Amino acid sequence: MSSEQFTIGLLGHGTVGAAFAGLLEQRAPHVQRLTGREPLLAGTLTRSGGSFEEILEGSEVVVELLGGIEPARDYVLRAMRAGRHVITANKQLLSQHGEELFAAASEHGVQLRFEAAVAGVVPVVRVLSESLAGAHIERIHGIVNGTTNFILSEMERGSTYAEALAEAQLQGYAEADPSEDVSGKDAAAKMAILARLAFGTPVRLDQVPYEGIEHLQGDDLQYARELGLGLKLIGTAERRDGGLSVRVHPAFLYAGHPLASVHGPFNAVTVESSAITEITMSGPGAGGVQTASAVLGDLISVMRPPAALTAPLHPLELVHDVSSSYYLHMEVADRPGVLAEVARVLGEQGASIKSVVQRGLGENARLVMVIHPLPQSRLHAAIERIGELDFLRSAPRAIRVIEEEFT
Amino acid sequence: MSSEQFTIGLLGHGTVGAAFAGLLEQRAPHVQRLTGREPLLAGTLTRSGGSFEEILEGSEVVVELLGGIEPARDYVLRAMRAGRHVITANKQLLSQHGEELFAAASEHGVQLRFEAAVAGVVPVVRVLSESLAGAHIERIHGIVNGTTNFILSEMERGSTYAEALAEAQLQGYAEADPSEDVSGKDAAAKMAILARLAFGTPVRLDQVPYEGIEHLQGDDLQYARELGLGLKLIGTAERRDGGLSVRVHPAFLYAGHPLASVHGPFNAVTVESSAITEITMSGPGAGGVQTASAVLGDLISVMRPPAALTAPLHPLELVHDVSSSYYLHMEVADRPGVLAEVARVLGEQGASIKSVVQRGLGENARLVMVIHPLPQSRLHAAIERIGELDFLRSAPRAIRVIEEEFT
Repeated sequence: MSSEQFTIGLLGHGTVGAAFAGLLEQRAPHVQRLTGREPLLAGTLTRSGGSFEEILEGSEVVVELLGGIEPARDYVLRAMRAGRHVITANKQLLSQHGEELFAAASEHGVQLRFEAAVAGVVPVVRVLSESLAGAHIERIHGIVNGTTNFILSEMERGSTYAEALAEAQLQGYAEADPSEDVSGKDAAAKMAILARLAFGTPVRLDQVPYEGIEHLQGDDLQYARELGLGLKLIGTAERRDGGLSVRVHPAFLYAGHPLASVHGPFNAVTVESSAITEITMSGPGAGGVQTASAVLGDLISVMRPPAALTAPLHPLELVHDVSSSYYLHMEVADRPGVLAEVARVLGEQGASIKSVVQRGLGENARLVMVIHPLPQSRLHAAIERIGELDFLRSAPRAIRVIEEEFT
Repeated sequence: MSSEQFTIGLLGHGTVGAAFAGLLEQRAPHVQRLTGREPLLAGTLTRSGGSFEEILEGSEVVVELLGGIEPARDYVLRAMRAGRHVITANKQLLSQHGEELFAAASEHGVQLRFEAAVAGVVPVVRVLSESLAGAHIERIHGIVNGTTNFILSEMERGSTYAEALAEAQLQGYAEADPSEDVSGKDAAAKMAILARLAFGTPVRLDQVPYEGIEHLQGDDLQYARELGLGLKLIGTAERRDGGLSVRVHPAFLYAGHPLASVHGPFNAVTVESSAITEITMSGPGAGGVQTASAVLGDLISVMRPPAALTAPLHPLELVHDVSSSYYLHMEVADRPGVLAEVARVLGEQGASIKSVVQRGLGENARLVMVIHPLPQSRLHAAIERIGELDFLRSAPRAIRVIEEEFT
C-alpha cells in the first residue's frame, strides 16, 4: 500500500462541511484501500478563519460547501484555473453560473463534480452523466425538494398546510424562513441542473417557471384520494414540440406512477427514454451526513485512477444460519388446544408469536401466524416438530418476513 | 470534431447482441459528440461466422454477449491479456469465475465493466462501485429477477402459480424452461455479483443458498394482504454476526418498504448504510434494448477521457406553453345548469372533461373535475372566464395531473 497522500481543501464548515470532515476521517482507511492514496484534509476555510490562497496552494482538490453565489463562484473559478479539481454541493451557483463553470473545467482539464447539489444522496447526477450518457432521454420527473414532500405527506394525513409546515420546522426539515423551499424555487434550481445534464441544453434558474405548494388546500388532497391520485411537487424536464420544457409545479400522479409512493422528506427522480423505458432512483433528500456521503463518492472518483473499477478485496466471513421473522401457514384439525400446542413447540425453539389469524374450514382450520426473528436452523427444527403433531392436516409452510429497520 | 475511430469487437448476436448493434448505430453520432471518437463495430462473432482472433486484433474493446461459461470465459481472459477493455452482460461467468476475471483486469490494467449483468438497465453496478464506493454498506435487498416478480404480481391479482407462469411465457417474460428463474438460481448469481461489489468479499454462486417461488400458494398472497404485507422473491446481502450473509428466498415486505411497490417484470435494489439511510433504484429488469442500453453506458465510460464529466452542448429551444391534464376545483351555487355552463366555457378553450365529482354543501356545491390535456395559456383563459361566472363562490383552483404514458 502506497503511503502517498491526496490533499483536500475544504471551503465551508457548516452542517454539511462538518459532516464531510467527520465522514472523511472515519472512512479514510477505506478510501486509501480503494485508491492507493491517503485522503488528507489540508485546510478548511471557515467563517472565522483560514486563507483561501493557502488552502488552494496546499490542495489537489477543492471541496466547496459554502453555498450562495459569492465568494463561492470566485473561489471555484480560481481553483479550476489553478488546475484543481472541484467538488461542490452548490445548486444556486450551478443553476445561475453553470456554463461559466463547465467552460472553465473544460478549458483547464479538471473535473467539476456536483452529485450533492441535486437530490442529496440519490445518485442522479452520476447516472445521467455516465450510465445514461448514451441515451436519448425523453423526460425527467423529480421530487427534488424534501421539505415540500414532507409537508404534502403530512397534509395527506389530514394536517392543514400551516400545521404541516410547523411540523416540518419542528423536525428540522424546514428552515425558519421556508420560502425558497415552499415556493418551488429550490426545486427549480435543481431541475435547471438536471436539464443541462440530460438534454445538453444550458438552462438557468431564471428560465424555469415554478409554482409552489403554499396555495394548496387540504381538500385538494382529499379529492386526490377519491380520484385515486397522489399530490406532489414535481419538477419536470421534457422534450416538447421539438424543444425542451423545464418547470416545477404541484401535480397529481396516477397511483401506479413510480413517484406516487415517495413519502416524507425523500427525493426521487424518474428518467424516461424509449430504450430504457424508465429508471427511478430514490433516497433521503437532505441531511448533513447524507449530503457528505455524496461528496465522498465524488472525491473517490476524482482520486481513483480510471481503470480500477473493482474494489480490492477486504473479505468478510460468509454467514449462513441467519435469523428472520417468519410467516407460518398450517392446516390443522379444528379442536381445542391446537394453538397452545403449536406455541409450545415454537417456544422450545425460542420462537415467539407476533400475530395470529385462525380461520375455520369445517372440521379443519387454517392457522396463519407471524413469529419474531429466529435462526433458520431453529425454524427448521420447529417446522419439523410441528409437522409431526397429530392434528396437522398438511405440511406447514414458512416464508420469511422483512420488517422495517430504518425508521 | 475529431474523426478518429474507436473499434468495438462484438461477441454474440442473439437478442441483446443484435439490439446493441442496432442501438450503437443509432446513437453513434451522439457518442462521437460525447467522446470525440466515432464508435465503430469492427467485427461480430456469431454462431455461424466470424473469427475471434481477427475480431480481437481489430478492436479496442471487446463486448461479450455470448452468455454461458465457455467459450465466453476463454475469450474474455484472452481479450484482457491482450490489453483490451471488456464489457460483459454475463452473470453466470461473473458469479462463477469473477475473481479470475477481476485479477486479470487488474494485472493487465484494463477495464472490466458489467452493468448489464445485474438488474438490466438499473445502474446498480455503477452506483455501488462508484457513487457508494466510500460508504460502509450494511445491507442490499434486491428484486433482481423480473420473471418471478411478474409471476408474483399476477398471483397477487388472483392467478394460480401455473396460470401466472403460463401468462409470463405468453408475454415473453419467462423461457419455455423457466427453472433458472423460478428456482431463484438466476437471482442468486446476481446477488453474488452485487455482494462482491458492496462488501469486497468474493462470493461464488455455489455459496449463495436460494429458494424459489414454485412452492408458493395463492392463499399465502391472500394472507399477505390481510397482514398488510407484500410477497416478493428477495435477494439479500447483509452484514450479520461480523460476517456476510448472501441468500435468495421469497419474503414478505411491510407495506412501506421501498420494494413493496415494485410490480410486474421490474427489478429494484435498495442499498442501506447509516450514512446514506437508504437508496432505491428501479427499472425494467430485462429486454434486449434495455440491456443493450446498459452496455452502451459502459462503452461510453470506456471511451471517454476521464475528465470530461459534463456533456458538450447540443441545445434545444426552451418551450413554455406546455399542455397538461388538469384537476379543477370550484365552489359554485348549487343550481341547475352550472356544470353545463362550466363545460361550455372549457369547451371554448378546447378542453374536454375526463371525470367529475360534484358534492352538495347546502346552498353551494363543490365541483371537482379532471380535464384532458390543454395548453397552459388556454387553461389560464378558461380559469379566468370561469372566475367571472355569477354562480362562482370562490376562485377556481387548477392543479396539473400527470398521467401514465409508458405502459
